[in-house]
Amino acid sequence: MFANRRFAFLLFLLAGLTAAGIFRDSPLAHDAGGDEAPPAAPTLDQLASGRLPVVDLGWPLNDTSPYWPAENYLPFRLTTIATLEKNGVLSKAFYCPEHLGTHLDAPNHFEKNQPAVDQIDPAQLFARGVKIDVTMQADADADYRLTRADIDEWEKSHGRIPDGVVVLLETGWSRHWNNYPRYKNQDTTGKLHFPGYSAEAAKFLVVERKAKGLGIDTLSIDHGPSKDFVVHHIVNGAGRYGLENLARLDKLPAKGFFLVAAPIKIETGSGGPARVFAIVPGPAGRN
Amino acid sequence: MFANRRFAFLLFLLAGLTAAGIFRDSPLAHDAGGDEAPPAAPTLDQLASGRLPVVDLGWPLNDTSPYWPAENYLPFRLTTIATLEKNGVLSKAFYCPEHLGTHLDAPNHFEKNQPAVDQIDPAQLFARGVKIDVTMQADADADYRLTRADIDEWEKSHGRIPDGVVVLLETGWSRHWNNYPRYKNQDTTGKLHFPGYSAEAAKFLVVERKAKGLGIDTLSIDHGPSKDFVVHHIVNGAGRYGLENLARLDKLPAKGFFLVAAPIKIETGSGGPARVFAIVPGPAGRN
Repeated sequence: MFANRRFAFLLFLLAGLTAAGIFRDSPLAHDAGGDEAPPAAPTLDQLASGRLPVVDLGWPLNDTSPYWPAENYLPFRLTTIATLEKNGVLSKAFYCPEHLGTHLDAPNHFEKNQPAVDQIDPAQLFARGVKIDVTMQADADADYRLTRADIDEWEKSHGRIPDGVVVLLETGWSRHWNNYPRYKNQDTTGKLHFPGYSAEAAKFLVVERKAKGLGIDTLSIDHGPSKDFVVHHIVNGAGRYGLENLARLDKLPAKGFFLVAAPIKIETGSGGPARVFAIVPGPAGRN
Repeated sequence: MFANRRFAFLLFLLAGLTAAGIFRDSPLAHDAGGDEAPPAAPTLDQLASGRLPVVDLGWPLNDTSPYWPAENYLPFRLTTIATLEKNGVLSKAFYCPEHLGTHLDAPNHFEKNQPAVDQIDPAQLFARGVKIDVTMQADADADYRLTRADIDEWEKSHGRIPDGVVVLLETGWSRHWNNYPRYKNQDTTGKLHFPGYSAEAAKFLVVERKAKGLGIDTLSIDHGPSKDFVVHHIVNGAGRYGLENLARLDKLPAKGFFLVAAPIKIETGSGGPARVFAIVPGPAGRN
């Protein structure tokens, strides 16, 4: 009787401590791949008070910023309206194609009856993020496309891609950002060469993993040589968005981060320059 | 001895349940002014999975969008580069003054040696928010300026404004948004008339409450008749930003919400169109 009571007492002690989260941050609480797992439940209050690292995934806009190289596209242009010296205030105006620099492709970019950039539900602009790194493959083949096998490989290492994330594809292409000819990599026939998603991979991520959006560190989620823009059609046809010309994907872990994608709110716009921030709790964010 | 053991047992049960957060959402856990208190620690995961209401505080940009009415300023202009019918893709380009529509004033707008819009530390763009409502005062006086007494009154009702928030001033002016002449409210001498912050209030919020930024639902954080833009100088001089032409401030509670301010990343820009989102946990967000 005495021994029984003592046993129950110890059981309660253990239950209480577990419920209180005493063991939450111990190695016991993590699975085998726990090196990239974020601490439990990072809060908005931690974010608002500067206690979570924020990585800016955008490039600054200037007159050398890469843009989609097609007819009627012109570079970003900034003009000064007023200066501190002459007018007591600094103020400028700018011209910009929607699909220039770090930007969002709205669902109406390639598909009818899909929302314009100003009509995207704000809830879609906040998401968990995962990153798939194909830098090595893209180094060997500039036209490389993410395969289903690459995704399987990722899931084997990091677990199932959760529903409703934004997927970011790191190709290493951002090292060419400051050299537009190298970045678009146009051959003598006019064909572009840079990596992207395959149709199969995009369909899997959008349909089977319900991705809110697909992002990349190149000019397009379709690889350079594409003429049918099949990946754009898959993504936009499902009402999802693309994020292109992303910066600093090398600063992100494979998983365990959060994304904010904030495109300029152009009425009827097919997309536009966007601020994209990654919030990276845990050790990975502290670099 | 038996009674003592029983007592200790019950104590442990209570401690365990309390630590486990069983009582966290009970009325016992809230203080007297709990009607506006958010649920404990809303998380990024809740935000990313659509479980927290997001209020879009921005207006869509079009050719009737209000802008600062001064020399060299032109309206927003959208041109179509390609269409689905002709080109298989919808794509546009736009012209925009930096200080048009819902936008952010960077610290370099009115002050030398302060960061441009692309140089603002991303950590400054995430903040807790408070809203001060002077709709009644502004109804009686279009040139009304928020006073120190208004802030004292707010703090008496809602508690001390925490350090590092973004303060939003609701004046009711957004009801004139779709009528630019009424919104800027220019008299026959050219003077503008709409409400704003007083220098005293701005200084208090920036210095004593370390506000990251000041926002408003009018063309300017300075009230319409201002010629010295003293509030801009106070805010920008302290390295802080302004948020102007905000929408839907009437949807926000006085406190207990979070803000994301995401301005277009123009290199050397004095500001620019911004997406501004409020995340409103708790009952206030469910309207």
